[in-house]
Amino acid sequence: MRHFIPTRVVFGRKAVNRLSEEISYLNLNTKRTAVICGSSAVSLGYTKKISEQIEGEVKVFPLVKEDPTVENAEEVLKEVKEFSPTLIVAVGGGSPLDVSKVVSVMLENEGNIREFIGIPEVFKRPGVPLVAVPTTSGSGSEVTPFAVLTDREKLRKAPLISRFLFPALAIDDPELTISMPQFVTANTGIDALTHSIEAFLSKRATPISRLYSLESMKLILNYLPRAFGNPKDIEAREKVMLGSLLGGMAIADAGAGLVHTLAHILGVLYRVPHGLSNGIFLVPVLEFYGLSIKDKLEEIGNYIGMGRNSHGFLNFLKEFLSFLGVPQKASTVGLKEDDISLFISLAMEKKHLMGSLPRIPSERDLRVILEELM
Amino acid sequence: MRHFIPTRVVFGRKAVNRLSEEISYLNLNTKRTAVICGSSAVSLGYTKKISEQIEGEVKVFPLVKEDPTVENAEEVLKEVKEFSPTLIVAVGGGSPLDVSKVVSVMLENEGNIREFIGIPEVFKRPGVPLVAVPTTSGSGSEVTPFAVLTDREKLRKAPLISRFLFPALAIDDPELTISMPQFVTANTGIDALTHSIEAFLSKRATPISRLYSLESMKLILNYLPRAFGNPKDIEAREKVMLGSLLGGMAIADAGAGLVHTLAHILGVLYRVPHGLSNGIFLVPVLEFYGLSIKDKLEEIGNYIGMGRNSHGFLNFLKEFLSFLGVPQKASTVGLKEDDISLFISLAMEKKHLMGSLPRIPSERDLRVILEELM
Repeated sequence: MRHFIPTRVVFGRKAVNRLSEEISYLNLNTKRTAVICGSSAVSLGYTKKISEQIEGEVKVFPLVKEDPTVENAEEVLKEVKEFSPTLIVAVGGGSPLDVSKVVSVMLENEGNIREFIGIPEVFKRPGVPLVAVPTTSGSGSEVTPFAVLTDREKLRKAPLISRFLFPALAIDDPELTISMPQFVTANTGIDALTHSIEAFLSKRATPISRLYSLESMKLILNYLPRAFGNPKDIEAREKVMLGSLLGGMAIADAGAGLVHTLAHILGVLYRVPHGLSNGIFLVPVLEFYGLSIKDKLEEIGNYIGMGRNSHGFLNFLKEFLSFLGVPQKASTVGLKEDDISLFISLAMEKKHLMGSLPRIPSERDLRVILEELM
Repeated sequence: MRHFIPTRVVFGRKAVNRLSEEISYLNLNTKRTAVICGSSAVSLGYTKKISEQIEGEVKVFPLVKEDPTVENAEEVLKEVKEFSPTLIVAVGGGSPLDVSKVVSVMLENEGNIREFIGIPEVFKRPGVPLVAVPTTSGSGSEVTPFAVLTDREKLRKAPLISRFLFPALAIDDPELTISMPQFVTANTGIDALTHSIEAFLSKRATPISRLYSLESMKLILNYLPRAFGNPKDIEAREKVMLGSLLGGMAIADAGAGLVHTLAHILGVLYRVPHGLSNGIFLVPVLEFYGLSIKDKLEEIGNYIGMGRNSHGFLNFLKEFLSFLGVPQKASTVGLKEDDISLFISLAMEKKHLMGSLPRIPSERDLRVILEELM
């Protein structure tokens, strides 16, 4: 078993006000700080709140787009490089966090982004230190060694994996998640839940990652419907954010699984939000795993207080996803009968990642899953 | 809430054989490696096994004594300094690990050890990178920012606390714990259990440290009697070591408590092994906490599968400690009626550390606890 999450985490309401103190604690150099985000972090006042706490020169780069492409990351990198930052603060959802992580390491490593895609631990040098300030409760990117971009050329999600992608500091303040629109709350929360479930079912799950997974699932299953139902329910926001943090910690140690692989393809092909894509595949994939995960689902059911009943858990999960507005059919979000073969071939390109799955799908298995979603 | 454990952990049987690979992964410089340990790590062949895996010059310093004093640490520091290591590997129980951690930071910070005692985060610079290879399952020192020395001058345990005391790498190989004598197995295991319990009851407990605590307690309570009963039971050794690792992670985030404070004094005054001292105070302190921890003990009882019954848990704990050979009276290990006032005044010097306890003891409360142990 390996466990490695070197990021310092500060969590809780008003945690963002501790930014300055925590930067000092870690001796981070704030001579020139690049704040990287999307446009909403500016309009919501988050970048202002953050900039005010940082001594030295601060420049805001609100350039990150949703589901950022490699080209978007290159564009941000180019702008930020000219500023030559000593520190990067990433503010936003998974998109700005992931782009910032890529920018951080690219500033200190020669080459262009495409060369580093998909090859674990390919960066030679640590990046510019990064502080991650998530404003959604989903990606868990603030505590993972991963960054995911969209590669439109090759119709795939392009993962970067390196220990140098761990932020130095994560500031998880649930008050920054209050402004999420309802569908973003739902989709990001489902993403986090999927992290926990997939990490738990992975052969790479460890005695430590399992603790994170179980508690994360309990929190998200209990509190996401409340955060979804009433966006201002700060207690629920806090619990869901903790669930997302723990979900990130779980995949940091144990990785994700088939739901993510399929969701990435759906996302690239039809620009479906990542969390929603996960929600669509979650139950079908668990049903495909079937008896191979029966004991694990019972363990989950037991931990979350609904008893050792794997069918009960799956039924609850269906109801949960339906409440959050996840459609039962992938056709609803654009999947076409004609694309299924392309979809399967894109999935099979990821076959080398499937060694940790509880049941490894054949092409035929994938076809069955996809056709049932039509 | 804060969470910060930057140490990379490699855990499992034969983990020690991954030393070389992990050192490369972290880009640690092995030009000159100082292996710091006590005498038994040499006679058991552990230093040989480790040295063989390290390129560059390796020198073994088997100089650490049991319950090391500040003077012992100074002596090791002096010898190691002449070697000017680029890497330190600490092998052994809590004693060699703690001395190595102190040596690591002292090599890079001006001053003498006594200046740094008791003042959190007083070191300016990170130390020489440290790999910790525990051979007992107790201190959890391989994943904490603490080191404890004995200060005979002031009759106290001298703690050092700094983020620079986290090892870069921890290699937890349960096969290295097989050689522990029975009483060391018992005492170190009780130390680990005490970490988990005290961290759990602390006001500084976090949603993350509580996960570590609960799982740690479950593992140690279930498997320590087996490891004690049959030293070669490798499954039990592995579970207890995991419990110890998680106990270390729990105190890294949440700190220990009154049991440790009192055990340190007993240890200094009468040279009682640290784990045994913890075992003597554990139940009396929990009984002193009384109703203030009733719900917490119920939560523990529930997690370990004995139901929500705080008395049941305390009774089980008594039986557990008795099985492991912990005496019910502190007088058995040397506590004298005449020393009680000195004992209390030494404890009250630590009053500033008691703000996180579930119930803060008065001098009178301490007297009652101590007199009942006569």
